Amino acid sequence: MERFKGRWEKYRSLVEEGLDVFLPPETEYPQSLYRAMRYAVFSGGKRLRPVLTLSVADAFGTDPKVLLPQAVALELIHTFTLVHDDLPDIDNDDYRRGKPTVHKVFGNAIAILTGDALFAMAYKVAIAGSLPESVKLRILREINDALCYRGVIEGQVADIESLQKEPSYEDMLFIHTHKTGKLIEASVVVGAVGSQVSEDKVARMREYGRKIGLAFQIMDDILDAVGDEKEVGKRLRKDFNRASAVRILGLDGARRKMDELVSEAVEIVDGVLGRRGWFLKEMAEFIRDRTY
Amino acid sequence: MERFKGRWEKYRSLVEEGLDVFLPPETEYPQSLYRAMRYAVFSGGKRLRPVLTLSVADAFGTDPKVLLPQAVALELIHTFTLVHDDLPDIDNDDYRRGKPTVHKVFGNAIAILTGDALFAMAYKVAIAGSLPESVKLRILREINDALCYRGVIEGQVADIESLQKEPSYEDMLFIHTHKTGKLIEASVVVGAVGSQVSEDKVARMREYGRKIGLAFQIMDDILDAVGDEKEVGKRLRKDFNRASAVRILGLDGARRKMDELVSEAVEIVDGVLGRRGWFLKEMAEFIRDRTY
Repeated sequence: MERFKGRWEKYRSLVEEGLDVFLPPETEYPQSLYRAMRYAVFSGGKRLRPVLTLSVADAFGTDPKVLLPQAVALELIHTFTLVHDDLPDIDNDDYRRGKPTVHKVFGNAIAILTGDALFAMAYKVAIAGSLPESVKLRILREINDALCYRGVIEGQVADIESLQKEPSYEDMLFIHTHKTGKLIEASVVVGAVGSQVSEDKVARMREYGRKIGLAFQIMDDILDAVGDEKEVGKRLRKDFNRASAVRILGLDGARRKMDELVSEAVEIVDGVLGRRGWFLKEMAEFIRDRTY
Repeated sequence: MERFKGRWEKYRSLVEEGLDVFLPPETEYPQSLYRAMRYAVFSGGKRLRPVLTLSVADAFGTDPKVLLPQAVALELIHTFTLVHDDLPDIDNDDYRRGKPTVHKVFGNAIAILTGDALFAMAYKVAIAGSLPESVKLRILREINDALCYRGVIEGQVADIESLQKEPSYEDMLFIHTHKTGKLIEASVVVGAVGSQVSEDKVARMREYGRKIGLAFQIMDDILDAVGDEKEVGKRLRKDFNRASAVRILGLDGARRKMDELVSEAVEIVDGVLGRRGWFLKEMAEFIRDRTY
């Protein structure tokens, strides 16, 4: 566990540095936008997605720094989706990671535009760095596919629509694998594609990403149902009228499903990477065991 | 004028076809999103930006079809910015091109996500097609630069902030060249970059794009002040408390500035393309003479 936390911290500090380098300085005009972008980004997140990208690269023997721009891009995209989801017109959340959300601090108009700006910056950053052009384009395709025409945005729309009905197990699966799963999956795949490993290995790592992505969202549902609001850092007990895994499978059913996904994910990494995959195996277990 | 209109129509129908091919079919799930995306896109726009891309390519001897994905991407980005700008939290516009705006028909949440989805699709489309990889990446950089860290989004933020003060000529220039100008400039540059012409020619075409972009927005201000609401297809007389060129330069001053920009733009195209630039010269004049 100590080794795992230390390694996570190593990747995370790389990501923090990268975010700082790639975001516009908040001393420049228009300051409100750049301040809001940095406020949204530097809010003490776990950096799960870029840490996945860097750790997958590392496991395949690629210097994580080579993939830092693409890892940063994934965190910017994740942050953009949070800023828009928190808006009063969508989830109407006042707190995120224990701090007032962007629209609470900067107003709705700047929050919408901050999301857009983070999205645009993400694409700028995703094609920076020293990877070959063909690899950069392949990575862009992965990121694009994770977002639209069966991506995060469709998941968000399905989530909103699920409020109008009694969601089924299939609805829950669609929402969870898209709204949360797709970007986690892409973060893993970008690490593999950026390491230029075989398509077979990319496909197996994609499976790993899919499984931990779904497990992550099921754990979110479990935390929403039984977690500690202070520890989790956001309003809880609010997803039960949604397509929550706990609502549909029950608390025990949700835990069983998650255990199954985590075991399968560990097995995949073991097959592809053996001992070099230790961090990714512990990551799957962390997702299962986390309390925040 | 007939020749000009005929050629515009030829480019425009290519763009319409391209948009239809690249947008998700509205029969697929989640239909509300795909219906809203198509509603936003197929609303009878002039398609100025993609027409610029295709016509610049054509003038340089490149088959416009080769650049159709990139032209379509620019229209998707333009539409995304309109959908977000029209939101109640930003400009609060109920009509666009004579039709109710996206949020009026689909609600605010879907409108925000529709903008995001159009943005994401734009990047997907921008790297489609047969251009060399290095050219695609260069085009992406142009599009990215047009959007953020001194792009359309900064222009929009500056525009919002200008409501809180007495805007200067410099404020007006910043807003107009960024909020409207940057994407028009990029549309011209993408046509040149996609035709793989010399950097010198790209730079001169960029100047042309900059000038017609600014002229276009000044004409928007003039139409806002003296245009016909039915013909223009949106609410007018609303920009006078903004950094409008008419407010800052007066009606005659705005017209003079625009005439100057159009003459300079025509001269640039004449120098770079001679007679092959006829459409782009007439485009500059159209921007000056338009009534809608």
